[in-house]
Amino acid sequence: MNILITNDDGIYAEGLLMLAREISKIAKVTVVAPDRERSATAHAITLHKPLRVEKAELRNCSVESWMVNGTPSDCVKLALDALINDAPDLVLSGINRGPNLGTDVIYSGTVSAAIEAAIYGIPAVAVSVAAYENVSYEYPAQFVRKLCEVLKEKQFPKDTLLNVNIPPLDVEDIAGVLITRLGSRKYKNCFDRRQDPRGKTYFWLTGEVVEDLEDETSDVWAIKNNYISITPIHFDLTNYEVIDSIKKWELKPLL
Amino acid sequence: MNILITNDDGIYAEGLLMLAREISKIAKVTVVAPDRERSATAHAITLHKPLRVEKAELRNCSVESWMVNGTPSDCVKLALDALINDAPDLVLSGINRGPNLGTDVIYSGTVSAAIEAAIYGIPAVAVSVAAYENVSYEYPAQFVRKLCEVLKEKQFPKDTLLNVNIPPLDVEDIAGVLITRLGSRKYKNCFDRRQDPRGKTYFWLTGEVVEDLEDETSDVWAIKNNYISITPIHFDLTNYEVIDSIKKWELKPLL
Repeated sequence: MNILITNDDGIYAEGLLMLAREISKIAKVTVVAPDRERSATAHAITLHKPLRVEKAELRNCSVESWMVNGTPSDCVKLALDALINDAPDLVLSGINRGPNLGTDVIYSGTVSAAIEAAIYGIPAVAVSVAAYENVSYEYPAQFVRKLCEVLKEKQFPKDTLLNVNIPPLDVEDIAGVLITRLGSRKYKNCFDRRQDPRGKTYFWLTGEVVEDLEDETSDVWAIKNNYISITPIHFDLTNYEVIDSIKKWELKPLL
Repeated sequence: MNILITNDDGIYAEGLLMLAREISKIAKVTVVAPDRERSATAHAITLHKPLRVEKAELRNCSVESWMVNGTPSDCVKLALDALINDAPDLVLSGINRGPNLGTDVIYSGTVSAAIEAAIYGIPAVAVSVAAYENVSYEYPAQFVRKLCEVLKEKQFPKDTLLNVNIPPLDVEDIAGVLITRLGSRKYKNCFDRRQDPRGKTYFWLTGEVVEDLEDETSDVWAIKNNYISITPIHFDLTNYEVIDSIKKWELKPLL
């Protein structure tokens, strides 16, 4: 198997290193990742400046690695279009520090890299650990390695990627694996209003998370209840359910 | 009606100015937009630096206007959470110079601003003119004004926004209005590989558009055939159709 690894925490993030080391046991790995943290870049791509690519070296890990002065989506596009000769069998994005759940997925650079691969028709998996401090990537990396081996045997769904979130627990405390839908995860009181040393106002994004913890089919619920969550994601944003009712609006007079 | 206007071409873009002038004929308009062009920022939000807000003045247009050193999504979040007292009845994003069609919608700052509004539960419309040169915003702005008046009478679909693309034609050459789904619009040969004056390689994103023009239900087809396209968009990326088949995978041994 040829596997491309990228992320949005940057090429020197520990989650990427641990994943590259573990996956290189079972596949030929190439890393193409941003040269620094690019969290919350969503699906941004770089149109207005040149992209630079440089060879990188990962600590105690001999996989071929490149870093790019761009976003996670730039990395996947560049890897597939310009850097790698053979299309990979699978693209992995992560392991991200912090969850990518529910409504938040729309802001996620980690998930967007996997969406980019799916647009190219390549199976892809985004992986996150649902914690920010004292994160251990050892078990999550092993889980992804085993998942890759399962995926080799399966028909990967078309125009789809998998969004995996892993609770920050020892393996014996993990309740199981659930196939989920994206839940509701929003924020309230989103901005701190502050004064700078010159007396001018600035705003800093913050906000309390408001999660819907009732819906037992959701990724948010799964993580809260110590399950590993796997959500199939697609990139067709059409809301098919309302097309027919909008067609009934009388829009001809608008012309 | 209270209407918030934003965009991703920046607060001094002509498309936003023409829209603000036209919509202020029928509603109380507030503009909160990026201080410079933010195209292809997708749904990026600014976590790692403070946001600054400054009063702006639009040419021959007396609506209250603010510019933000952030992305389109930042602008909507800030407007709704910190700048505006009463929640708007509608958020308009645009008028964008250039189409936002098919697969490309996932990269669009224009659409992401409208998605952000929809996440807050506010009806939203993203508007683009499908041309880059010699764009006239006069008719498109009038169309949006008339659309706003229709929307006032309708039940706006929940958790949805409308993505409107208008062909760059005189009104008498427009074939009609179609309610569409997002089509397929991809790129091939995405990067120019070049040498800088120091002999170092760099890459610049480019690429030929590959559109699926067969699907008569798509936005891509509508614009190609001189129709105004309106696509309902949602922000739940779950691929529900494949959940059941993935549930049949035997994943317990992964633990």
